This record gives sequence, C-alpha cells and structure tokens, in this order.
Amino acid sequence: MQITRNSIETAPGPGDWFTGTVYIDAVAAPSEPSRVQAASVHFTPGARTAWHTHPNGQTIYVTEGVGRAQRRGGPIEVIRPGDRGSSSPVRSTGTAPPPTAS
Amino acid sequence: MQITRNSIETAPGPGDWFTGTVYIDAVAAPSEPSRVQAASVHFTPGARTAWHTHPNGQTIYVTEGVGRAQRRGGPIEVIRPGDRGSSSPVRSTGTAPPPTAS
Repeated sequence: MQITRNSIETAPGPGDWFTGTVYIDAVAAPSEPSRVQAASVHFTPGARTAWHTHPNGQTIYVTEGVGRAQRRGGPIEVIRPGDRGSSSPVRSTGTAPPPTAS
Repeated sequence: MQITRNSIETAPGPGDWFTGTVYIDAVAAPSEPSRVQAASVHFTPGARTAWHTHPNGQTIYVTEGVGRAQRRGGPIEVIRPGDRGSSSPVRSTGTAPPPTAS
C-alpha cells in the first residue's frame, strides 16, 4: 500500500471550470488500465461548476454542507451529507458547501 | 443527475471479510462499462479486514479517525484523515476509526 499523506497543499479550481472559489485535493489519480479519478472538492459559499459533461460518468458523495445539483433541463435538487449523485454521460452542475478548515 | 438520499440503512460487513464490526454504505455501484465501485466503510474500534487482494487496485481515503494499514510483508502504517492509500494488485489489510453516529 502506497500512502500519500494529507498536507496543507490544495489547488484552486480552474476559473473556466468554476464560478467562485473552489479547492481541489486529489484522492486518486488514474493509473492504466483504469481511467478512474477521485478528488475532494470544497466549494466556498455560492461557488459552482460551469455546465459540463462526464463522458465516463461521475459520482458525487456529499461529505459536509448543503449543495445544489442539476442536470441540464432537470430540477434543481438539494444535496446533503451522505447523499450520492450519479451522472451518466449527461450535463450537470453543482453548487456546494462551505469550506473546511485545514 | 440521479440522487440517492442518505438513510438510516447500513449494512454490517460480512464476517469472512472482517474481524470485528464494520458498517458499509454503498457510494457508487459499478455500471457498465465501468467496474468501479465506492463505499463508505466505518470500522468500530479494533475492527479490521481479513487479508485480501484488489485485482483492479483500490484507493482508501481516510475521512475520520486513525487507522493502520499494511501490505503483506510491508510495514504497518498509521493513516489519518486526509491520507490516501493506494493498492495495485497486492495484498493489504486495514484497521480503522471509531464509528460515526448516524
């Protein structure tokens, strides 16, 4: 087992992916043959993603705070800790929780 | 986006996978062509997995508590919140954190 330690490093989300301030910490990077990646994403209040697609699908798991998620043309849904959201190849956007203290 | 709400349901981990009491909540189920699955696993104090392998690899992300992880023949490593552990096709075992109140 290869351990990667928690650190004070974090990366602001790119401005063309997000409106508002978002911090992204990698959890798992893809390693062949897998294409899976996982990240812990903290949304500051009001921050949200730009409309985007997930050609290989995506699962969101809410760990804290309260957010909103929407599939384009669908209802806005409130998501809370423990809720899971799955996207097949669709457009989706999300707005989420306050930041965590590091 | 398909939302699955948090609930008070949880599943005890099977006795042949774990020693001690562990609770498992599905986060993502595999959907073709993906083979990815994700689960939130809570270990009660002292609970641990049996030695096992991950033919397609696995990533652990510690969200709370303090645990121990080991690759067979390797050192026992203490893992804490925010730490990530990745296994390629290897044997590993883990002991982890106290339970969360639901």
